[in-house]
Amino acid sequence: MIGDYQRHCQERVDHCLDSLFTPPLAQLERLYQAMRYSVMNGGKRIRPLLVYAACDALRGDRAQADGAACAVELIHAYSLVHDDLPAMDDDDLRRGQPTTHKAFDEACAILAGDGLQSLAFETLAEARLNPADPALRLSMFSTLARAAGGAGMVGGQAIDLGSVGQRLGQEDLMRMHRHKTGALIEASVRLGALASGNADPASLDALRRYAEAVGLAFQVQDDVLDVESDTATLGKTQGKDQAHDKPTYPALLGLQAAKDYARELCTEAQQALQPFGEHARPLWELASYIVERRH
Amino acid sequence: MIGDYQRHCQERVDHCLDSLFTPPLAQLERLYQAMRYSVMNGGKRIRPLLVYAACDALRGDRAQADGAACAVELIHAYSLVHDDLPAMDDDDLRRGQPTTHKAFDEACAILAGDGLQSLAFETLAEARLNPADPALRLSMFSTLARAAGGAGMVGGQAIDLGSVGQRLGQEDLMRMHRHKTGALIEASVRLGALASGNADPASLDALRRYAEAVGLAFQVQDDVLDVESDTATLGKTQGKDQAHDKPTYPALLGLQAAKDYARELCTEAQQALQPFGEHARPLWELASYIVERRH
Repeated sequence: MIGDYQRHCQERVDHCLDSLFTPPLAQLERLYQAMRYSVMNGGKRIRPLLVYAACDALRGDRAQADGAACAVELIHAYSLVHDDLPAMDDDDLRRGQPTTHKAFDEACAILAGDGLQSLAFETLAEARLNPADPALRLSMFSTLARAAGGAGMVGGQAIDLGSVGQRLGQEDLMRMHRHKTGALIEASVRLGALASGNADPASLDALRRYAEAVGLAFQVQDDVLDVESDTATLGKTQGKDQAHDKPTYPALLGLQAAKDYARELCTEAQQALQPFGEHARPLWELASYIVERRH
Repeated sequence: MIGDYQRHCQERVDHCLDSLFTPPLAQLERLYQAMRYSVMNGGKRIRPLLVYAACDALRGDRAQADGAACAVELIHAYSLVHDDLPAMDDDDLRRGQPTTHKAFDEACAILAGDGLQSLAFETLAEARLNPADPALRLSMFSTLARAAGGAGMVGGQAIDLGSVGQRLGQEDLMRMHRHKTGALIEASVRLGALASGNADPASLDALRRYAEAVGLAFQVQDDVLDVESDTATLGKTQGKDQAHDKPTYPALLGLQAAKDYARELCTEAQQALQPFGEHARPLWELASYIVERRH
């Protein structure tokens, strides 16, 4: 059951993350509180799960994937803090709680986000949470930096902001999501594979195909849920994308076709896992979970 | 003459930096323009100079320090973009030009800053700009991440924001600056030393003492200049710190005592350079330049 595996990964990464927010100075207490608040929020930890599950698929030691699992969640968390800012998506609620700039203030939220990004890279440098091999760690750094930056997640957010009120075609919408959420999901899978110490080019390529399909499925399903769920289930203001006139898959393809598309992508992802046999079961089940989840 | 050396370093790092802002997609043109605008602004490049000069002091190859020189400038540039935001220092001018959120918009400035931070780490991962040894590169990553984050530069900015309107003692003011500007200056020197491939613990320690004193001198002199210069020379709104009721060294010690203190720190920095002899001349001259500069 993916539920048990997810809980295990969630507990594992939450335990590691929890140790990262000790303020080095009394005057930094508020900043570190804001950083902690932005991360320790009961999140589903899908990206860390992908790190651990990819490490498992290559029979690696999960203890060597802890650094990467923390790092991707820290990047994800910082991006949400900045996305929620008034100048960006201007959101007051996140997982049913006040967003960081509401719970603290705007300046503190900007700085907390900045600090979380640095912390992600710092975590990859911690010897006790990562594989010992420096060359391996170096390619992990490079993977994360590329996925986080302008050619990845930040770029996706920029395309997204630029596309409000525009009619995007499916190609453009896919490109936006491949950057905005896909890049970090692909990086999570790749980081887990690298952390295992057993990654060869063929398995990295198969896992990349898995991650691409899963990343896109995740976004299509997110758009579907934005239409279908009510605010209470989703923990954020419902119908927000439509209200902001943001392009979505249901708007583009129709609701039923969007759901079908998510299922197709799920099958595609699962097919890419064949070479890994039973060891890839968590990755396999995660793909199903992503298109079946209700929030 | 430090002037010639500075020009050389400036041209060298500007040439490297200039190659980093090619948008990977047409839709990302505006984001990359904002990133380029925030970096390619005729800045003095003091941090890259420190990288190269520390590399020189240990007789390293400057070509292997290019990655670090770019990385520290990118971190510095991103911090200025975010510091200038309305929710932070709310500045309209930087080096006599509109700040990034004025030239573009606020959302774009937040994202450009975020992208520049990622790009800094990405640049340290580029093989052609850095030493080949993975273990060395790994400690460079770790040095930069620590200096940039909550325990370093971001933390300093948080202390600074928290101290507006408060009367700080000299201890607290020093602590704030050691984080806000000192951490990245120390990291610049350390990165240059590491990039040389010839750093041993004793030289790293001597260079750390140099960097600490120079970093503090830099800040004291900045405060002095804020009082003494007019807006045209400084390229930013003059007397701004006082107007915002920010704690400064002249306010705390008096103007003349602040100037004397900067000179003392300069001497202290130069004394730490003794073990390196003639090879440390640029570092030596830079210390003098910092307390003699008029803008």
